[in-house]
Amino acid sequence: MNQLAPGVIRLTFGTPESDTPSKQSYVKPPRYEAFGALPGAAVPFGEDAIRFRASARGCRLELPLTPGEDIYGLGLNLKRLRHTGKKRTLRVNSDPATDTGDSHAPCPIYFSTAGYGVLVDTARYASFYCGGNEPLDAEECGEGEGEIRLTEAELYAGKKSATAPMVIDVPAAQGVDLYLFTGPTLLDAVRRYVLFSGGGAFPPEWGLGCHYRACGTSNAEQVLALAAELRSKRIPCDILGLEPGWQTRAYSCSYQWSPERFPDPEGFIAELRDQDFHINLWEHVFTHSDAPFYREMRPYSGDFKVWKGLVPDFTLAPARDLFRNDHASRLTGKGISGFKLDECDNSDFISSPWSFPECSFFPSGHDGETMHSMLGAHYMDVIDNACRDAGTRTYGLVRNAHAFTSPQPFVLYSDLYDHAEFIRGVTTCGFAGQLWTPEFRHAVSPEDYVRRLQSMVLSPLMLLNIWMMPNPPWRQLVRGKNVKNEFYPPEEQARLEKLTREALELRMRFLPYLYAAFAAYHFAGTPPCRALAMDYPEDERLRDVDYAWMAGDRLLVVPFRAGMTELVLPLPQGAWRNFYTGERYEGEVTLAPEIGELPILVKENSVIPLADPMEHVSSGTRYHLTLRIFGDSPEPARLFADDGWSFGFERTGPSWGELRADGAMSDILETRYAIRKLERF
Amino acid sequence: MNQLAPGVIRLTFGTPESDTPSKQSYVKPPRYEAFGALPGAAVPFGEDAIRFRASARGCRLELPLTPGEDIYGLGLNLKRLRHTGKKRTLRVNSDPATDTGDSHAPCPIYFSTAGYGVLVDTARYASFYCGGNEPLDAEECGEGEGEIRLTEAELYAGKKSATAPMVIDVPAAQGVDLYLFTGPTLLDAVRRYVLFSGGGAFPPEWGLGCHYRACGTSNAEQVLALAAELRSKRIPCDILGLEPGWQTRAYSCSYQWSPERFPDPEGFIAELRDQDFHINLWEHVFTHSDAPFYREMRPYSGDFKVWKGLVPDFTLAPARDLFRNDHASRLTGKGISGFKLDECDNSDFISSPWSFPECSFFPSGHDGETMHSMLGAHYMDVIDNACRDAGTRTYGLVRNAHAFTSPQPFVLYSDLYDHAEFIRGVTTCGFAGQLWTPEFRHAVSPEDYVRRLQSMVLSPLMLLNIWMMPNPPWRQLVRGKNVKNEFYPPEEQARLEKLTREALELRMRFLPYLYAAFAAYHFAGTPPCRALAMDYPEDERLRDVDYAWMAGDRLLVVPFRAGMTELVLPLPQGAWRNFYTGERYEGEVTLAPEIGELPILVKENSVIPLADPMEHVSSGTRYHLTLRIFGDSPEPARLFADDGWSFGFERTGPSWGELRADGAMSDILETRYAIRKLERF
Repeated sequence: MNQLAPGVIRLTFGTPESDTPSKQSYVKPPRYEAFGALPGAAVPFGEDAIRFRASARGCRLELPLTPGEDIYGLGLNLKRLRHTGKKRTLRVNSDPATDTGDSHAPCPIYFSTAGYGVLVDTARYASFYCGGNEPLDAEECGEGEGEIRLTEAELYAGKKSATAPMVIDVPAAQGVDLYLFTGPTLLDAVRRYVLFSGGGAFPPEWGLGCHYRACGTSNAEQVLALAAELRSKRIPCDILGLEPGWQTRAYSCSYQWSPERFPDPEGFIAELRDQDFHINLWEHVFTHSDAPFYREMRPYSGDFKVWKGLVPDFTLAPARDLFRNDHASRLTGKGISGFKLDECDNSDFISSPWSFPECSFFPSGHDGETMHSMLGAHYMDVIDNACRDAGTRTYGLVRNAHAFTSPQPFVLYSDLYDHAEFIRGVTTCGFAGQLWTPEFRHAVSPEDYVRRLQSMVLSPLMLLNIWMMPNPPWRQLVRGKNVKNEFYPPEEQARLEKLTREALELRMRFLPYLYAAFAAYHFAGTPPCRALAMDYPEDERLRDVDYAWMAGDRLLVVPFRAGMTELVLPLPQGAWRNFYTGERYEGEVTLAPEIGELPILVKENSVIPLADPMEHVSSGTRYHLTLRIFGDSPEPARLFADDGWSFGFERTGPSWGELRADGAMSDILETRYAIRKLERF
Repeated sequence: MNQLAPGVIRLTFGTPESDTPSKQSYVKPPRYEAFGALPGAAVPFGEDAIRFRASARGCRLELPLTPGEDIYGLGLNLKRLRHTGKKRTLRVNSDPATDTGDSHAPCPIYFSTAGYGVLVDTARYASFYCGGNEPLDAEECGEGEGEIRLTEAELYAGKKSATAPMVIDVPAAQGVDLYLFTGPTLLDAVRRYVLFSGGGAFPPEWGLGCHYRACGTSNAEQVLALAAELRSKRIPCDILGLEPGWQTRAYSCSYQWSPERFPDPEGFIAELRDQDFHINLWEHVFTHSDAPFYREMRPYSGDFKVWKGLVPDFTLAPARDLFRNDHASRLTGKGISGFKLDECDNSDFISSPWSFPECSFFPSGHDGETMHSMLGAHYMDVIDNACRDAGTRTYGLVRNAHAFTSPQPFVLYSDLYDHAEFIRGVTTCGFAGQLWTPEFRHAVSPEDYVRRLQSMVLSPLMLLNIWMMPNPPWRQLVRGKNVKNEFYPPEEQARLEKLTREALELRMRFLPYLYAAFAAYHFAGTPPCRALAMDYPEDERLRDVDYAWMAGDRLLVVPFRAGMTELVLPLPQGAWRNFYTGERYEGEVTLAPEIGELPILVKENSVIPLADPMEHVSSGTRYHLTLRIFGDSPEPARLFADDGWSFGFERTGPSWGELRADGAMSDILETRYAIRKLERF
C-alpha cells in the first residue's frame, strides 16, 4: 500500500503497463492542500482481500462487495446510473446504443455506497462485473435456487443487489495499479478523486452563460445577422459556435478559415467580440493534407487515417506542440475563445465506422485501443494549452474523456438525443469528474423544446446547437420549414421567443450560484451536478433516481420531459422548499409544473442568490442579486469573487465570501456583487 | 503455404495460440473425397500480400481487397448480410441489439465476391475491419475529399465498396493460422470450407418435419393432450419439444425428470413414440447441484458459476464424457431424440448478465472468451454423441456455434424476434456452414402469424415454439387470452387452423426436396439455404438482398412479412417461373401474394418433386410424388434415397438418384419414392 495523498492509496498488482492514464502529460498535480478539509476514513478493505490473476489475455481482479452495496461511476453513461449486478465494458463509442458500458467517456473508476472509490489505472477496454457473477467457491445452491421459471421476465430478472465480488477484466495488461479513494462518504471519495486529479474544471463566467451554435451552412454575414438578432431580441448569449463550414476542409480538417464563407476572419472576430460574444470553433483531430502542419505531423501519426486525415499521436510532445502552436498562433491568438472537439471517441454503433481501429499502431508505441480511451483527454489538454497561450480561460465541448480529466474545461456532448438519456447523463457524469450537457438541437413539439431548454438551466452547459437550421428555433422548430424560412404565425413565434428568453434568463440568474458551484468543484472537488445517490447514498429510495440531480449544495432540480404531467419524487432527508412558492415538503413531493416551469427544490435553510437577468456577462460584470431566503435559520450562501475571467485564481487561490440572510456580505465579494433585495419564504 | 486439401491452404503468421478451434475435439475430418468434384482455382493472393504484426494486445493482419469486392460471412448475423466497409467484432451474444458483429454464432470466416474465403483460426473476439479503414501509407487526400458536409447523413454515409484492406484484429494471440479457401466462385469457396469442416449437417427426415414446443407449464397429461389434438386436427408434427419444466430444477439444470409433472417418463415417451412423435428436451449446460454428475463435474468446471450451476469445461474429455454418458444412459438411451441447447452463448445485451465472464479460468487453461466462442460447438458434439450412443440420428436446437460446426445437426435460434431479422438470418448463416430457424413464437395479428409460418417452409427448421401459451396459436394468438382459454370464434379458429395446416403441409410436401438439399450439404458442401449473393456474386443488384434465398438448387423463396403488399425483386440471370402458376419472369418480378401464399420462384427447366402431404414421416416412409415440371428442357431432379433415419449413409456413402421430367426414376429411389403424377408448366 502506497498512500499518495490522505485517503488515496495505490496498490500494485502484477506488472502494470508502462504508459497508463496516470502517466500521461495531461495529468495535473493533485490539489494536496485541499485534502485537509476532508474527514479521515478507514481503508475499505486490505490488499489481501483482493484477488489478482494474470493470463495471456490480460489480468483479472476480484474485489469484495457486501450485500446492499451499490455501484456508481465508470464515466458518463447515458443508459444506466446504478451498475450493481451488471457487466460494464468500458469501450469508447460515439453512439452508445446499448446498456453495456459503451460510452463517449468511459472511465475506469467506480464508487460504492459503502463510501469508497476504486480507480483502475488502465486505458484498456476493461470490463467491470459489478457483483453479479458468483465464483465457483461461493456457496452451493440453496433451497429455492433453480426453481422452474416460466416467463422471460423471471428468467432474466435483474439482480437487485450485489451477490458476488466486483470482477474486473483488464485486457492485454499483465498487471495494474489500483487507486483506492476513501470516504467516509461516497461524496468524500468522489472529492478525493477529483482533488487527486487536480481539482474540477473552472470555466470563466462567460462559459456558464448561453452557447448558441450557428447553422453549418452559415457564412460570416449570416452569423453576424444571427448575433444581431440575438442581441436585438434580448436572447441571452455569451458564446457563438461555428460548425465545420468555417474551414476550407472538414472531414478531415484543414483548420483554416474558408475564404468563401469567412473572407475576413479578423474583422468577423472583432465584430463579435465587440458585442461580447465569444467564438467557439468546431473541429476534430483528423488532419487533412491542407492543414498547415500536415507534413510535420505525418511522422507522429497513427498507421491508419480517418476521413483520409492523419491521427496525431498526442502522447508525443512534438505532435502536441505542433497542434498547440498552430492553434495558438492562428486561432486562439487571434481571438478565438474555445473549441468543440468532435469525434475524438469511436464509432462501433454507427452504420459505417469512421475512426481508427483498436489495432492501430502509433509511433509512441500506443495502440488504437489505449489511444481511443485517452484521445479526448490529450486533445483537451492540447487545446486548453493553446487557449492558455493566448491568455484565454476557455470552456469548450468534447466527445471523449477518461480518468484524470476533471480539471479540463470541456463539457461532453453526444449526437444521441433521447431526452431521458440526456438528463441521465447529468446524473452519471459527476462520479468520474466529467461534465455533460443535455444540449438542445431540435424538438418534436414546443413542449419538447421548452422542456429540453429547462433541463440545461442547472446543468454544466446551456447549449442551443442549431447547426441544422438557419433560423432560431423559436421561429420554427420543424427543420424542413425552418430551412425554407416558413415560420410560425407571429403570436406563436412571440410565445416561443418568450419561453426561450425565460429559460435562458433563468440560467443567467443562477450564474453566480453556478460559478460558486464550479469553484467548489475546482478547489474542493465537489462536482457541480450530482446524482442524489452521491449526496444521499444511504437512502435506498434514491439509488435509481436518474432524472433529478443536486446542482450546487442547495438546489435539487427535476427537469420534466414532454408528455410528463406529474411526478412523485422521493425527497432526501430533511425539509425541502419549492423554489418558486416556498412550499415546504418532506419525504416526497408531487410535482406538476406548468410548461414554463422547471421544478426546482431548495434545501431548507438556504440563501439562494439570483442575479438580475443579463444578456451576457462582461469582464468584471457586477451582479445585482436578489437573495431568496428559505427557512428560519438559513445558512449563508457562499460566492466566489475572482475576476471571473482570468487565470488569477490559479495564483491567488480561492476567494470565497459569504452572503448572509440579513443581506450582509463578505468584503471580498463587494467588487463583483451587489444586493438588490431579499425575498423571504 | 501448406495445402491441406485441394484449394484449402493454411498460412501461419507469428506464433498461434496452442488450442484454437481447429484443434478442438468437435472438429471432424475433411470430406477429402468430395473435393475432386470442385473446379480448381488460383489462390487469390500470395502470402507476401498479407501484412502481419503482433503487439502486447494481440496481433493484426491486413489482407488485400480490391474495389468492387464485397464481403459476406462471419457467422450468423441478424443485422447485416453484406459487411463491406464495416467493422465486425465477433463477440458471442444472446441478444445482438446492434449492427456490430455481435451474434449468437459469430464465426471468423469471410467470403468475397471475388471468389475466395478466409478463415482465421481463433476463438478470440476478433474484429474484422472490412475494407473501410485506409492505412497511413494509402494515397493522399484527392480532390473532392474533405468537402464540407452539412448533414448527419452526409457525414456518416456508409462506404459502398471496399476502399482499403481487410484488417483483422485478434486479441491476446501472438499469431494465427489463416485458412484460404479458393473458388473459383464464392459458392465453391463456401463448399470447400464446409467440406473441409467435415461436410454439412444431415438431419434425419423427421428432423425436417414440423417441430412444436409445448407450453413451459405443461405436465405429461397436457403434452399428451396436445399431441392428440395435433393428430386429430391433422396438423403436421414430427417433434414435440418440452421446455424447462420437464426437469426438477432449471436455471440451473438438474437434467432429471420432474416427478410432479412427469411421474412416468418411460410411459410418456412410449406413448408419444407410438404416435411417431420425437421428443426434444430443453436444457442448458449450467449444472445444478441436483444433477447426478455434479460432484464429479465440479473439478472440471470454470471458476465462475452461472445461475449457481457449474460451467463444465468441455475441452476436457472427462467433462465431455460425464455429460455424454449421463445423457446417453438416462435420456437418449430411454428414447429422447433431441435437445434444445439454450444459453450456451453470452449476455452482454440483456439487462442483467447471466453468463460467465470472459476472464473466467477453466481447468484446461481456456479462458471465458475462448470458451464462449466454442461452448456451443463442444456442447453440440457432446449431445450428438449422446444421441449416437443410442443409435439416434438427431436434429436439435442450439444458441451458439462457431467455425468447423457445419456437420453438427443443430439449428440456431434466438430470443429476438423481429421478422425481417429472422428472415435475414437465413441468408447470413449459410456462409459459415450454420443453420438458422426463423421460428414462430407469437404474432401480433393473423397476418403476422401466417407470414411467420411461411418464412420457415423452406428454411432449415419449421418450429412452432409455443412455450408461452397452453393452447395452440390458431385458437388464440393473444397470450393473455390463450392462457385463460379465451378463444377466437369457431370460424376464425377454423380459418387459422386451415392456414396453419396449409403452411405446415407445404413444408411436408417439400420434404424430399429439402432432404436432398441437406444431402448435398453433407456430401458436397452446398448449404441448403443460400443468400442470392452466394449463388450470383457477380450481380451487384443482389448483393444486399437479405429477404430472399435460394432453397436447394432450384427454388428462390421470398417470404413476405405482415404489412407488405408488394415487392419488386431483382431476379438472378436466366428465366424464373412462378411456383404456383408457372408464369415466366426475367430481370425482375413484382410479387403481391395473397395472405395464404408464400412467394416461391423456380429456376427455368426444373423438375420439382412434391410429396403428398403427411402428418409426419415414419421409418421407411415411401413418398408419393407429384412432379412439377417447368420449361422445355428440364433438368432431372436429384433425390436422396437412404433410409432417412439411420447412420447407414455414413458407411455407404451417398445414394443419389434422378427423377426425370418424363417420370422416369433411378432404381435406387424406388424403395423410397413413387410418382403419382406430373404437372407441366
